[in-house]
Amino acid sequence: MAFHPLEEILHPGSIAVIGATAGENTPGNGFVRSLMEYGFKGNIYPVNPKHSEIAGLVAYKNVKDIPGPVDYVISSIPAHGVLEMIQDCGEKGVKAIHLFTARFSETGRKEGVELERKVLAEARKAKIRLIGPNCMGLFYPAHGISFSDALPKKGGTTGFISQSGQMAEDVGRYAALRGVFFSKAISYGNAIDFNECDFLEYMGQDPATERILMYVEGVRDGLRLSNLLKQITLKKPVIILKGGTGESGTRMTSSHTASMAGSKQVWQAMVRQAGGISADSMDELLDIATSFTFLPRIEGFNVGIAGGGGGASVLAADHCEAAGLKVIPLPVEIREELKQSGSKIWDWIDNPADMSIRDRSDFTPGHCLELMAKHRDFHLLAALMMDPHHEHQRSTTLEDILNQFKIETRFIKPMLAVVPDKSLGGEEFDDWKWEMLCRLRTRLMELKVPFYPTIARAARAAAKMAEYYQRVTGKE
Amino acid sequence: MAFHPLEEILHPGSIAVIGATAGENTPGNGFVRSLMEYGFKGNIYPVNPKHSEIAGLVAYKNVKDIPGPVDYVISSIPAHGVLEMIQDCGEKGVKAIHLFTARFSETGRKEGVELERKVLAEARKAKIRLIGPNCMGLFYPAHGISFSDALPKKGGTTGFISQSGQMAEDVGRYAALRGVFFSKAISYGNAIDFNECDFLEYMGQDPATERILMYVEGVRDGLRLSNLLKQITLKKPVIILKGGTGESGTRMTSSHTASMAGSKQVWQAMVRQAGGISADSMDELLDIATSFTFLPRIEGFNVGIAGGGGGASVLAADHCEAAGLKVIPLPVEIREELKQSGSKIWDWIDNPADMSIRDRSDFTPGHCLELMAKHRDFHLLAALMMDPHHEHQRSTTLEDILNQFKIETRFIKPMLAVVPDKSLGGEEFDDWKWEMLCRLRTRLMELKVPFYPTIARAARAAAKMAEYYQRVTGKE
Repeated sequence: MAFHPLEEILHPGSIAVIGATAGENTPGNGFVRSLMEYGFKGNIYPVNPKHSEIAGLVAYKNVKDIPGPVDYVISSIPAHGVLEMIQDCGEKGVKAIHLFTARFSETGRKEGVELERKVLAEARKAKIRLIGPNCMGLFYPAHGISFSDALPKKGGTTGFISQSGQMAEDVGRYAALRGVFFSKAISYGNAIDFNECDFLEYMGQDPATERILMYVEGVRDGLRLSNLLKQITLKKPVIILKGGTGESGTRMTSSHTASMAGSKQVWQAMVRQAGGISADSMDELLDIATSFTFLPRIEGFNVGIAGGGGGASVLAADHCEAAGLKVIPLPVEIREELKQSGSKIWDWIDNPADMSIRDRSDFTPGHCLELMAKHRDFHLLAALMMDPHHEHQRSTTLEDILNQFKIETRFIKPMLAVVPDKSLGGEEFDDWKWEMLCRLRTRLMELKVPFYPTIARAARAAAKMAEYYQRVTGKE
Repeated sequence: MAFHPLEEILHPGSIAVIGATAGENTPGNGFVRSLMEYGFKGNIYPVNPKHSEIAGLVAYKNVKDIPGPVDYVISSIPAHGVLEMIQDCGEKGVKAIHLFTARFSETGRKEGVELERKVLAEARKAKIRLIGPNCMGLFYPAHGISFSDALPKKGGTTGFISQSGQMAEDVGRYAALRGVFFSKAISYGNAIDFNECDFLEYMGQDPATERILMYVEGVRDGLRLSNLLKQITLKKPVIILKGGTGESGTRMTSSHTASMAGSKQVWQAMVRQAGGISADSMDELLDIATSFTFLPRIEGFNVGIAGGGGGASVLAADHCEAAGLKVIPLPVEIREELKQSGSKIWDWIDNPADMSIRDRSDFTPGHCLELMAKHRDFHLLAALMMDPHHEHQRSTTLEDILNQFKIETRFIKPMLAVVPDKSLGGEEFDDWKWEMLCRLRTRLMELKVPFYPTIARAARAAAKMAEYYQRVTGKE
């Protein structure tokens, strides 16, 4: 494996924030504080000609005044000062600059496009590599680097390459609520130097990254992307959300990150042929990331479902089929086992196993899931967990719920959980029901059982995961 | 308008619960307690040969022993006792029985089918009308009738006809969290006497019901349903979720409510041609119900969007277009107004209005929404409200948020809000962020602004609503 230029750049020993500001809740201050809060171990140098101290650190008038070496610069100054700053950084021996600075080609204005061209030329001359402009840069919790105080401090094994900074932050914090944490996330904006392909190539080699998420608005080199996907997806899944797939979305991408977007069909065909996985929304990106984080390999499409009542079972079957899973009838061997064990509904119960018809209180969804798990025809199990809503459920313990579903069945076959999560409302925020749901979710994360708010979303994510393994198996 | 037989049946003066039980958390006890808790004003008679008192009320050995008249019976006894019970009810002069009792044709067993046939014949002979069997029956909060302690006590203007009992309960409680409450909800199960068409016909005439939701698994008389929809949808929207649209879902419906389901395409074409609105999931049923409850008539498909950052704006445009809305470019008149008012981004900002590029702190999403509302080209406004996630947002007040979005703009054009509601997790249940979100949602309900967890869901519901009004306008 070749040495990748980003390996050194993303492991800086010291960072200067040029355009660091004193005012709280300003970006130039937030970059400095986040490095301190997330535990960056190297030197942090705020740079601002008007201050001698920022966030308790010595501030310098110019990057050239900093006593020690500076590996990495975060630029938070206005666009008109960037050319001079790059010259200063060149003299200082800086290796890379993350340009948080915006107002370049994304404005659609001639002068912005022109300035962006000059910025790249100046950086080349100074032998400095660029991330951005118009982006949030690097989130690397294991190395103490964050661009936002809203991101989790805990690191993980998922990588994220995001053209949008807000998306990087949103996905980072929402993923944490599903138990998914990041090795590195990079927001790369207008991508005038390093682009999505460079970051993908790097994360493909990065041993700390086991799966890669991407949010891209425009792609500069489709052939390179396709070739990279073909190689990397043999080893790691790559899940891509594309922004700007419609007429107006395409118009928007140019004013957001100056990207040229293309047709949705062409894009999806390319991703699929190259072994990547397309996500249709941020929620689906999160769902698929959660699935790959927690579920072992899914060997096929046959799903066994238990836990819901009648209507929920009917709809669960519809949603699973619409997603491409197969809801096979309950195999005759399982019916026989149920009959032997004295069940009065052995001839009636099916897959999904409708819990409203069960004939005795000790016959739980877990019984069905266990029988399905042990049967060769099933590849995946879905536990439909009801949200608590009756007063008498207040005393239900998490162990009661987990026992009902024989959660240890997850060691026999891949198992996911559906935990309803409808819109909060009213004064329900301090309600015992929400507390129970939150504790249940926390416990499921500990047990490495992924959860989804609806069976429809669970089924779509699981189907895309199963398809990925079918493709990879075919290739190998 | 003809007198409808259900009008009298659904307004009983007295109710007997046959098979009432003493044990808490048993259905036969729950029916009695719910009538008491929800404030039913008529007499409530528990019937059970083994008890003289149930839930603090005098219990009778047989319905015939009850001193006063009995209008309506809830049957919670086992299936084998139903024929005799109907005879007793006939002698007592009961007008209608809701058969919560199950284990009939839905078991798929010959004896269950046969018994169901006899039950109907016996009821006809006794001149008693039936709701069910295998269902939860009536929820009518304004009349003090409920089948579950989890449903809201507050009544409303939405009707719900649900073949599944669990669905009736789930929709009832989830809708309340969106500000949608019910005039009546009816779970009707196997529908051997009154069926979905009877209930639809009744709710079409019911002045307390302004919109009708349906969950159906099988339809006995497609032509009658189509004709009813054609008439009723001229006056009230009817939104239908169909269970059993796939291969396995079809198999499941027969074991749930003994229904014959049909092809998804044929079904959707029928509903559409008859003026009804198809929902694809319970979430969509709730979203569309929320839209019709809070939004005034939407006159077209052009949506104006403001409030998100760059990535969110790009994806919002994609999702709106995919749903069938039109995300028109920002009209030149609005650009001129922005230019006149000194905006430095008048030539750059677009629709959706990307708030990450705004040039001054007093330029809010509300400014954009107000300009869009006043422009003739826009038919609908979407306010993308971010969920709070930075520590410094802790002090944000609801009024701050509502002012940011100029929420009074809702009086100029229909306006909806997107309030993110990702999966809860960790120990977040007691977090200030969730409390703020819940309070915001409560306030939006009070202001009659519908909210949705994603722009994709909001757009699909709004597009279906706009289509409905286009059709109705074309018809009228």
